[in-house]
Amino acid sequence: MKLSKRQEQIIQIVREEGPITGDDIAGILDLARGTIRNDLSVLTMLGYLDARPKVGYYYKGDPTHLEIRKMLDGIHVEEIMSVPAVLDEKASVYDGICAVFLENIGTIFITRQGFLVGCVSRKDLLRSAIGQVDLEKTPLSMIMTRMPNIISIGPKDSVYTAAQAIDQWEIDALPVVVGEEQLKVVGRLTKTNINRLVVELGGDDES
Amino acid sequence: MKLSKRQEQIIQIVREEGPITGDDIAGILDLARGTIRNDLSVLTMLGYLDARPKVGYYYKGDPTHLEIRKMLDGIHVEEIMSVPAVLDEKASVYDGICAVFLENIGTIFITRQGFLVGCVSRKDLLRSAIGQVDLEKTPLSMIMTRMPNIISIGPKDSVYTAAQAIDQWEIDALPVVVGEEQLKVVGRLTKTNINRLVVELGGDDES
Repeated sequence: MKLSKRQEQIIQIVREEGPITGDDIAGILDLARGTIRNDLSVLTMLGYLDARPKVGYYYKGDPTHLEIRKMLDGIHVEEIMSVPAVLDEKASVYDGICAVFLENIGTIFITRQGFLVGCVSRKDLLRSAIGQVDLEKTPLSMIMTRMPNIISIGPKDSVYTAAQAIDQWEIDALPVVVGEEQLKVVGRLTKTNINRLVVELGGDDES
Repeated sequence: MKLSKRQEQIIQIVREEGPITGDDIAGILDLARGTIRNDLSVLTMLGYLDARPKVGYYYKGDPTHLEIRKMLDGIHVEEIMSVPAVLDEKASVYDGICAVFLENIGTIFITRQGFLVGCVSRKDLLRSAIGQVDLEKTPLSMIMTRMPNIISIGPKDSVYTAAQAIDQWEIDALPVVVGEEQLKVVGRLTKTNINRLVVELGGDDES
């Protein structure tokens, strides 16, 4: 919904001066209180402003951003995650490289007795491949990033939390894990999942 | 804004039956026309429904999705793109691997006399690194994906178009290009940019 110029002005005033009474807003705009009554109702109904009795109007935020956030907070990681690529720590770097090509993935999660102990990226594999190591004899445990230096996420966490972690820690793929000290990998959440979500959220509602 | 159960029902009816008159909606709900008058105004004002005279109400879409799409359509690629990593086609595979580590990027755009002729991914580099080639003597042109098999995007295209292309073609990085037949690379649009946008759009409006 497109706001009028006066409604935009009112938002600006409340953002800067709030909490502020309707009378004071009208005063700043040099208008009668009655003139802006309808604008204040619309802005309150749309969610930009809220009013407290005897205090006045205060700014709540851009409702579109708030709606987007509410939507992202309401979608769980498990709803959009992918199947993880997992190898045991004793598997070789060569096995890891094969997995990258066979499964077309960027990050492999490494386990010991089924529990997460590390992860290996394409960059880690590339570093080994140009180094002086025997790819078939070097285990992935030699080149992996180790726990606890792995950022993981739970299946019930929100996709917003996931996107924030990916951005903040500059990672490609989050292991989706369950358990307390011993973590089991149940999924993989990547920038590909987030990008697909963007396409879906902005897409037709008809599907 | 949270809709009432009756408002949700009305949306459902209009989605399935629209265009439909207010009287017919009231009839399906077994209510008087006057009872749902206010619901219809609210839904129309919020953007879920629209009405045409003598035709009736029809469904426009979930306004949050429409708002998200409008927002994504309104943001240009050039506003969120990154600096591209570009190498000449005569540079070696070894140079390409160095660029990946030095600039921490996933895809290198390859040019001839300054114009885009291909791109090289980490996977392409990894394939070469485990192969029987001399990395310092093999030019990137030997291993690159070539034009016209490169999906590119313009700086004025919308980020929604970019996200769609990334999803549809399963690519990591789009070269942002200008020019007609000869394309100059002016940026790089990746899933990292899209993920960051999600974090920003869902974030505080206060900043």
